[in-house]
Amino acid sequence: MIMSRIEAPSDDVTGNLLDRLLTGLPAEAVHTDPDVTASYAHDMASFCPAGAPAVVVLPRTVEQVQHVMRVATELRVPVVPQGARTGLSGGANASDGCIVLSLTRMDRILDISPVDRVAVVEPGVVNAALSRAVGEHGLYYPPDPSSWETCTIGGNIGTASGGLCCVKYGVTAEYVLGLDVVLADGRLMSTGRRTAKGVAGYDLTRLFVGSEGSLGIVVRAVLALRPQPPRQLVLAAEFASAGAACDAVCRVMAGGHTPSLLELMDRTTVRAVNELTRMGLPEATEALLLCAFDTPDPAADLAAVGALCGAAGAPQVVPAEDTAESELLLQARRSSLVALEAVTGTTMIDDVCVPRSRLGDMLEGVERIAGKYGLTIGVVAHAGDGNTHPTVCFDAQDPGEARRARESFDEIMALGLELGGTITGEHGVGVLKKEWLARELGPVGLEMQRAVKDVFDPLGILNPGKLF
Amino acid sequence: MIMSRIEAPSDDVTGNLLDRLLTGLPAEAVHTDPDVTASYAHDMASFCPAGAPAVVVLPRTVEQVQHVMRVATELRVPVVPQGARTGLSGGANASDGCIVLSLTRMDRILDISPVDRVAVVEPGVVNAALSRAVGEHGLYYPPDPSSWETCTIGGNIGTASGGLCCVKYGVTAEYVLGLDVVLADGRLMSTGRRTAKGVAGYDLTRLFVGSEGSLGIVVRAVLALRPQPPRQLVLAAEFASAGAACDAVCRVMAGGHTPSLLELMDRTTVRAVNELTRMGLPEATEALLLCAFDTPDPAADLAAVGALCGAAGAPQVVPAEDTAESELLLQARRSSLVALEAVTGTTMIDDVCVPRSRLGDMLEGVERIAGKYGLTIGVVAHAGDGNTHPTVCFDAQDPGEARRARESFDEIMALGLELGGTITGEHGVGVLKKEWLARELGPVGLEMQRAVKDVFDPLGILNPGKLF
Repeated sequence: MIMSRIEAPSDDVTGNLLDRLLTGLPAEAVHTDPDVTASYAHDMASFCPAGAPAVVVLPRTVEQVQHVMRVATELRVPVVPQGARTGLSGGANASDGCIVLSLTRMDRILDISPVDRVAVVEPGVVNAALSRAVGEHGLYYPPDPSSWETCTIGGNIGTASGGLCCVKYGVTAEYVLGLDVVLADGRLMSTGRRTAKGVAGYDLTRLFVGSEGSLGIVVRAVLALRPQPPRQLVLAAEFASAGAACDAVCRVMAGGHTPSLLELMDRTTVRAVNELTRMGLPEATEALLLCAFDTPDPAADLAAVGALCGAAGAPQVVPAEDTAESELLLQARRSSLVALEAVTGTTMIDDVCVPRSRLGDMLEGVERIAGKYGLTIGVVAHAGDGNTHPTVCFDAQDPGEARRARESFDEIMALGLELGGTITGEHGVGVLKKEWLARELGPVGLEMQRAVKDVFDPLGILNPGKLF
Repeated sequence: MIMSRIEAPSDDVTGNLLDRLLTGLPAEAVHTDPDVTASYAHDMASFCPAGAPAVVVLPRTVEQVQHVMRVATELRVPVVPQGARTGLSGGANASDGCIVLSLTRMDRILDISPVDRVAVVEPGVVNAALSRAVGEHGLYYPPDPSSWETCTIGGNIGTASGGLCCVKYGVTAEYVLGLDVVLADGRLMSTGRRTAKGVAGYDLTRLFVGSEGSLGIVVRAVLALRPQPPRQLVLAAEFASAGAACDAVCRVMAGGHTPSLLELMDRTTVRAVNELTRMGLPEATEALLLCAFDTPDPAADLAAVGALCGAAGAPQVVPAEDTAESELLLQARRSSLVALEAVTGTTMIDDVCVPRSRLGDMLEGVERIAGKYGLTIGVVAHAGDGNTHPTVCFDAQDPGEARRARESFDEIMALGLELGGTITGEHGVGVLKKEWLARELGPVGLEMQRAVKDVFDPLGILNPGKLF
């Protein structure tokens, strides 16, 4: 959709905006065709309002991003930065009349250094592309959100994404060493470092990670890498109750183990996955735990974990024979959300993280909430992190059910806070949870966060209506 | 030194300050005896100006800290927070007429949870006390600055301390999950979480780590713990040049190894340590590399690293026989700075971190600088991190030599920046490096950092004159 095919802008304001944008961007980078702009209106979250962008721009250079921000500042036009729009909180949703700033064409891997164990990338690099590229150097970029085949590093940074690896390797934030950021007024700021350590001034790098495009536009990132670990071996343990599975999780973590993955699927999820994939997971089980190690002797580590699962009451503990069988089990886990979506057509995926000692209480509470609202709520969890994804399944065509879905979703967040947890472990706040962010932060925290926002975005043009 | 022994305040301002402080603090927590206050005037950095505090307060509760900050805000009195004053950048140095706010009496460990793998502590807890306490639960708090036997967690958080462990386990910042902070106006703010993951709002926790008390007073911290690893086994490798040792470091890190420690001592340091301790380190060597593993099979890992050292030209590679011999080698390393201080009486310890691929260039440059200024500069380095501590030895009584020491110290920082590094890997900016922080950040970065400071400290009463 290049400029020549663009319809006439609807009014003078948009016309002026386009004229100004085109002084520093090639025509092929500026899109106003409503069919095109509509396709950039929202990410993958349910129940989040999205407006109609005035224009979608797809810059290829830092200078072009600077130009866009200078124009936006000059004309006071909101800017919504986007990666692959795989987010689950509406953080990339357009607002009416905004500039959608898609970073997907800035997709170059600029450097990979095995000695320094860093990669330098543009924001549009796809997570899987980076993973594969560094893998060729024997290196490993751990963060692996379930959308890793399509999501971008810029999006991962914006939402501080997690994944299955976090129980051992942590979240995106821990891999971002330095950033180049285009500020609201178009100036370029470098934060952080390329070195392994560095404490010169405030950690603005980390401030930008998870800021959902509300403080500036990340145009380059220095990422930390690790040596590639051995391939992981997975064990599956069945439990007669979710509580027993959570007890096993606590035993494993308190026992000094460091699994590379420790995931839980409840009965609803197991059945949904079987329904979708015919994988033949154990239907009768109330909770399935998957545990993996990528250590030098994973079989020995799995045996120790298997014994702990047994002590917690697991009737059945099955270690995978090899990495191929392990991969099948992981596929089952990875298909969970799609499988749950197939149950009733629509899902709302929550992302509440609790101290892992409270995981059992959390699951028990979610079951109670599902009963109260008469809804199916499947739970998959990064159990080793205490990070649950209670997934409310509902028929979006039924207004009553949709309302109950939203109410149960909120009640799950309230439960998470009550248990000492957070409303979001890895998906971010976006539009979906902004009222809840205020509850989690409290008035003082909220005031200081808003004040930080004002420092970087005095005109309020950066992704307005998100977070706060 | 309790209030009954305090001399009359020198003027009305101080009198009023004391009166106000004593409305919310017990007399025994408020010290104005000049001998006492003078002993709180500065940390362990050389060449940093320090003023005379008006008063030293030693609160025991969060409420008392809040009271101090309310009074400070009301009367516009600067507050200098302090831990054990083991810092090396003057970040805890008093300014004239300030309130020194020592957190050393808030030294309770409030919680240790093996399941959640967290500890909750007050800021005055000594690093070693925490390490030992969590060790009793089979847990490990990695950050180990060389002052770990005396320095406090609050000080570690303020300066974002590192240590020997960082090459595998990272720095203090990576272990701080959440904070309670008393703001400049006395309000209490909680940041972060107790959970393994969490992305609700901006990461203010990380903003406070390394902020040197310039944004607020940390009164409680939730710290991440790890399972206690096996005891590490150390190898010593001699090299005929510092360049060859740096080459070995690059081979080890590019080779996918994850040592628990990878340290370098140059010839000057080795000789100084022998002089002080009679340890009998190899005097003829130009550089000594210490490498350790805390893996299940450290001997095998050390053998692989030994081979890489050999390939880099090491004439002598000696693995320790056991953990006792390993501990001796680490003692040699840990005594380096004291040993260098003994050479000429005074040292300035630099803290430049470069990408590890530039470590050889850094060491070569430091040798050139030492020659240029006719000074002894010993280098110890957390080589695996590229974090060097070039230590300028000089006679402080000789003004010319002292001037040359400062000039060489600055030239080392300039070299670090030129090599793509940072002026501080783990010691912080304090008073010592504030001109250099401006150089490293550049005008835009500096402006934004100052603006963040203004959000949290609009009156400029929090540790003024530090960082900026």
